[in-house]
Amino acid sequence: MNHVEAPCYAVIFTATLTEDNDGYVAMAKKLQTLVENQPGYLGVRGVTKRDREITVSYWRTLEDIQSWKEQPHHATAQALGKSKWYSDYQVEICKMERGYSRSV
Amino acid sequence: MNHVEAPCYAVIFTATLTEDNDGYVAMAKKLQTLVENQPGYLGVRGVTKRDREITVSYWRTLEDIQSWKEQPHHATAQALGKSKWYSDYQVEICKMERGYSRSV
Repeated sequence: MNHVEAPCYAVIFTATLTEDNDGYVAMAKKLQTLVENQPGYLGVRGVTKRDREITVSYWRTLEDIQSWKEQPHHATAQALGKSKWYSDYQVEICKMERGYSRSV
Repeated sequence: MNHVEAPCYAVIFTATLTEDNDGYVAMAKKLQTLVENQPGYLGVRGVTKRDREITVSYWRTLEDIQSWKEQPHHATAQALGKSKWYSDYQVEICKMERGYSRSV
């Protein structure tokens, strides 16, 4: 994704995955397609290695974050995450105050 | 790391690594030892897979973030990152407004 300009919001999602990844990759792909049409969505950066995932998504407003949280397919994914895919997770809603990027 | 209570600050560091990782792991270990004694440091979460790194560190105040940025060993690491280890990177300073965690 491109550089994101402050002010905007970042949702930091950190999780530990269980060994049950049935449906996980398919759901991640489906959500990525859906989120790109979601109002206020600015982009995402994520890295998953073995059982550790960090995904940071960027949003224009807090209301945009709330709307995505309530999106029906995303709500289903959250429920599956709790019941199957994640053994623990953290969600942090942050206001980006400043950011800079550099291509070396 | 444990759950971090808002209000606090998160520094989201995202980078693409070059193929030159000489000294990278040793520096990461050294910085981890140093940062744990840095005033206002609350914790870190990071995942690196192949050439992608996301590291989120948590701080009590913006002044604590600035002090760590200026810490001499960290400043050396930043210079080496620019000259050797990273082909691009983004740094985002964010105020955590709320957060929740769950063990499933």
